[in-house]
Amino acid sequence: MSGPSRQSADRSGLSRITRHVPVLAWLGTYRRADLPGDLIAGTVVAIMLVPQGMAYALLAGMPPEVGLYASIAPPLIYALFGSSRTLAVGPVAIASLMTATAIAGLGGAAAALPGPVLALLLAAMSGTILLAMGLFRLGFLTNFLSHPVISGFTSAAAIIIIVSQLKQLLGLDVPKSHGFVDGLLGTAAHLDSVNATTAAIGVGAILILLFARRRLVSLLAGLGLPHAVAAAIGKGGPIIAALAGLGAVVAFDLDRNAGVRVVGAIPAGLPDFTMPALDPVLIRELLPAALLIALIGFLESVSVARALAAKRRQKIDPDQELLGLGMANLGAAFSGGYPVAGGFGRSVVNFSAGANTPLASIVTAVLVALVVGFFTPVLHRLPIAVLAAIIVVAVASLIDVRSLLRAWRYNRADAAGLAVTFAAVLAAGIEIGIAAGIALSLALYLWRTSRPHMAVVGRLGDSEHFRNVLRHPVRLYPGVQFVRVDESLYFANTAYLEDRLLAAAVEDPEIEHLVLICSAVNFIDGSALESLEQLVHQLREMGVTLHLAEVKGPVMDRLERGRFVADMAPGRIFLSTHDAAVALAGGERRPDARGLTGK
Amino acid sequence: MSGPSRQSADRSGLSRITRHVPVLAWLGTYRRADLPGDLIAGTVVAIMLVPQGMAYALLAGMPPEVGLYASIAPPLIYALFGSSRTLAVGPVAIASLMTATAIAGLGGAAAALPGPVLALLLAAMSGTILLAMGLFRLGFLTNFLSHPVISGFTSAAAIIIIVSQLKQLLGLDVPKSHGFVDGLLGTAAHLDSVNATTAAIGVGAILILLFARRRLVSLLAGLGLPHAVAAAIGKGGPIIAALAGLGAVVAFDLDRNAGVRVVGAIPAGLPDFTMPALDPVLIRELLPAALLIALIGFLESVSVARALAAKRRQKIDPDQELLGLGMANLGAAFSGGYPVAGGFGRSVVNFSAGANTPLASIVTAVLVALVVGFFTPVLHRLPIAVLAAIIVVAVASLIDVRSLLRAWRYNRADAAGLAVTFAAVLAAGIEIGIAAGIALSLALYLWRTSRPHMAVVGRLGDSEHFRNVLRHPVRLYPGVQFVRVDESLYFANTAYLEDRLLAAAVEDPEIEHLVLICSAVNFIDGSALESLEQLVHQLREMGVTLHLAEVKGPVMDRLERGRFVADMAPGRIFLSTHDAAVALAGGERRPDARGLTGK
Repeated sequence: MSGPSRQSADRSGLSRITRHVPVLAWLGTYRRADLPGDLIAGTVVAIMLVPQGMAYALLAGMPPEVGLYASIAPPLIYALFGSSRTLAVGPVAIASLMTATAIAGLGGAAAALPGPVLALLLAAMSGTILLAMGLFRLGFLTNFLSHPVISGFTSAAAIIIIVSQLKQLLGLDVPKSHGFVDGLLGTAAHLDSVNATTAAIGVGAILILLFARRRLVSLLAGLGLPHAVAAAIGKGGPIIAALAGLGAVVAFDLDRNAGVRVVGAIPAGLPDFTMPALDPVLIRELLPAALLIALIGFLESVSVARALAAKRRQKIDPDQELLGLGMANLGAAFSGGYPVAGGFGRSVVNFSAGANTPLASIVTAVLVALVVGFFTPVLHRLPIAVLAAIIVVAVASLIDVRSLLRAWRYNRADAAGLAVTFAAVLAAGIEIGIAAGIALSLALYLWRTSRPHMAVVGRLGDSEHFRNVLRHPVRLYPGVQFVRVDESLYFANTAYLEDRLLAAAVEDPEIEHLVLICSAVNFIDGSALESLEQLVHQLREMGVTLHLAEVKGPVMDRLERGRFVADMAPGRIFLSTHDAAVALAGGERRPDARGLTGK
Repeated sequence: MSGPSRQSADRSGLSRITRHVPVLAWLGTYRRADLPGDLIAGTVVAIMLVPQGMAYALLAGMPPEVGLYASIAPPLIYALFGSSRTLAVGPVAIASLMTATAIAGLGGAAAALPGPVLALLLAAMSGTILLAMGLFRLGFLTNFLSHPVISGFTSAAAIIIIVSQLKQLLGLDVPKSHGFVDGLLGTAAHLDSVNATTAAIGVGAILILLFARRRLVSLLAGLGLPHAVAAAIGKGGPIIAALAGLGAVVAFDLDRNAGVRVVGAIPAGLPDFTMPALDPVLIRELLPAALLIALIGFLESVSVARALAAKRRQKIDPDQELLGLGMANLGAAFSGGYPVAGGFGRSVVNFSAGANTPLASIVTAVLVALVVGFFTPVLHRLPIAVLAAIIVVAVASLIDVRSLLRAWRYNRADAAGLAVTFAAVLAAGIEIGIAAGIALSLALYLWRTSRPHMAVVGRLGDSEHFRNVLRHPVRLYPGVQFVRVDESLYFANTAYLEDRLLAAAVEDPEIEHLVLICSAVNFIDGSALESLEQLVHQLREMGVTLHLAEVKGPVMDRLERGRFVADMAPGRIFLSTHDAAVALAGGERRPDARGLTGK
């Protein structure tokens, strides 16, 4: 792969600069034809984002305007530095939950600080971590978050979020809780405190959202509207629900008459420049949470960005994404926001509404800024139950039972990783849960590679192919055993290999030659090399000669650096198993029928 | 491999019992001819063991008789349950150091308890851990201690031991120290307090030991002694040094006149039955140390046992070794001993002095018991400097610089693991040092497998072989790219694979077919499968079809469980790369010359 990419990289100094500031690349070549799509998509996302941003801010334990502020600077800055052309950056559900959890978990003097102050610090820390990861090319660290761990975590997070919203959705009086189990029990114990009006608004909003998402588009199209317009209106579920809720409160004064909680006063005007409080003690306390927010936010963003880019044969540069998201989070930290990421839902909407370039994100940011500047009084009496409904509908689709079933069918180790992460996140919290999931999936992987599949092979018919004696009717050779090991040799499986090969030699005293077939050995580390050396000597004491066959180029290069090749003599390294058979057993002339068993 | 072993296992009920109590196997078939070898070897080891056992006990911070007691019951019990015929079990240097460190590290009420009481508990815990590992077949856990980690740890431990003995060897007045660095500085600061007589005895003993080891045998053989007798006397270095030191003290009353420290009174008679103090708080505090003593002791024993067994085409059963060593440690715990293991030096002596069966170990145990029963008054005035010399000479050979140099040449990652373990054990102690070494070696392994070697391959001449375009002069096909990935596909490398393949498709818009060659893919986990599915869709959006080739049997079995094979259509799974080339590019008919570059 490195051939063509090497030739095309670094064509000029300009490309080196635009590589790190992608805006220079797309703005310089902006085509007029892209404008309508960008304007429409940016507007649709802004309409979706205003109620969603407020809702996610409430989920994060912030005043609603924090969500709006986080919807201005971050998408604007991402448009300059991000490598995705259609990723919609701003408040997202999971990062909001993690922000709430991180702040709720603080003790001591920090607990007395206002939430938004802490959120600024979290955003600044996440942003710095992302930039550092980009600088030191540590993006690969997210590779160790396996799909089952992500899936288990996401499902658990969605359930935690939904339970946390029941209070707002139904207007319950629930005391503050610590952890998921406590919150669930507290909510269940206070179900009788339901406010009927609030519950009606909340459930009504859910029905509107589901209707808009599932039926509205086909209904409108059936009424004769152009499909594109119908689809655009279909994306407007949150704004329709918000307007309906707002209308009901205003029409019947439900906030004063029926105890329906509303958003309340939102300061008008753009956010001030804010400076995160850089307190070392606080930074140390928030570090694990900031790290996870950065990692998970990055992972979510990159997977969406990659999926959308592929649809247009575009490319995502993970290191550039780290830069873009890091800068966006720093932007949030200095403009009254809180941690942001690329959201799945809004990015898909942005893409399918026609966004061609990051200009769409700039349009979104400008429109949200207009709302913040001039229309906050309108939002005053918006019922919180509607925002809770928006959150619940948005995250319900994150609960992923299918992945568990699939994993169970395909590979039990994956299913175990998913289930353990899910259960541990619910029972012990996000950080411990994810750590447990990562530890388990790495342990299971290591365990598997520590006991590699090994097969005694024999000649298939008169061919030059050698296959597993248990799967195929093959011929064996008296005195020569061919063993294929299906794994790279490294310290964790080297004792296993040694035991199995010594056992083979002890069990069959007739064996004079043992040929280890290395077609699946991609690497031999120092421990394994020492083991092979010992094996050569130990087998020699038993009167058995060890040979290798089908050793790959890079492995062979390394073996030739030491004395191993000389020490294994009279054992040889054969190019192919067939060569070994011809040299050691006279090839086709002396096949032994006892192996003709097959399966 | 499983074919023949399955057939030979479980031949009868008797074999199932003798499998777990090996003494029944070897005692029932004992041959008279084995007796002389066993008697001589057992006697030689006993002569070596009496001074060595006392020396190691002092190293562990115990009174000397504890080392003798640990040389009676443990070898006796190991003879009944161990699977090695020649392993000599008893006090060893590393376990003694670890015992001393574990006890010195205790704080609170535990620090007031006498050392031997704590050592009994450590032995009981290590024994129980070994038995539990045998029961749950957890012996594979030791596989994760790589050779570089062991080597780094052993070298560091040897240096710690030698520094700890300087005080006794030279008769210095050094205050009690905490940790290696503190001990080294303390010893250096008090070098002027040297006792000249003690130093003379210590250095003299070292010279005797080195002479006995390197020159004595050839000298005696030159004087006309049969080689076997000369060799047996050559093993007696420790007893010669001890007798010389004892003679010097007695002749000149050096203990009273010159301040030479001696062993002092040793209680006569066999050890009483002892009961370890099973205090839960203490157990929790000692657990990490007991675990490491068990793991490292097991590893040391198994590697010696395996090496010796191979010389006679015998087999070591690691699970049985866990049972044998576990019982031996429990034996030590109930008879006034301390943690034991199979020692490298004494086992080699046992083997080369002619031991044929575990009867040799029984002979050793009986002879040490006789010494303890009747000859302890003789040991009273043995100078401690001689015991320190025995320790220093025994462990000096454990310092292993060659391994570091070899690792550096062969594989830098191994060298890093070794160096980090070595430095961390010296700087931060045994437990942290080993943990750091394990973590680093696993991390480096995971890092390597997360960035697998990938190669664009082409047809080699007119053959059916496809090789790396960068290493060989091969032919490529327009519109078809063949990519070989040299690693199993799992969550940690799946994003890397995705990025590389998508980049290939983006960089060369001519590509219509991408063939992933899976000859080195031993496993595809659920995350990687999902990635492949996404890749199929993403490539399809780009107008590229993904195919697989050379998928192995077990991997194919798993792929067929899900919908992947159907979903990847029109992409196909080809038996060989050649088949894919014929089907997709018309085989030999349309080779493209642009790849004929080679290297």
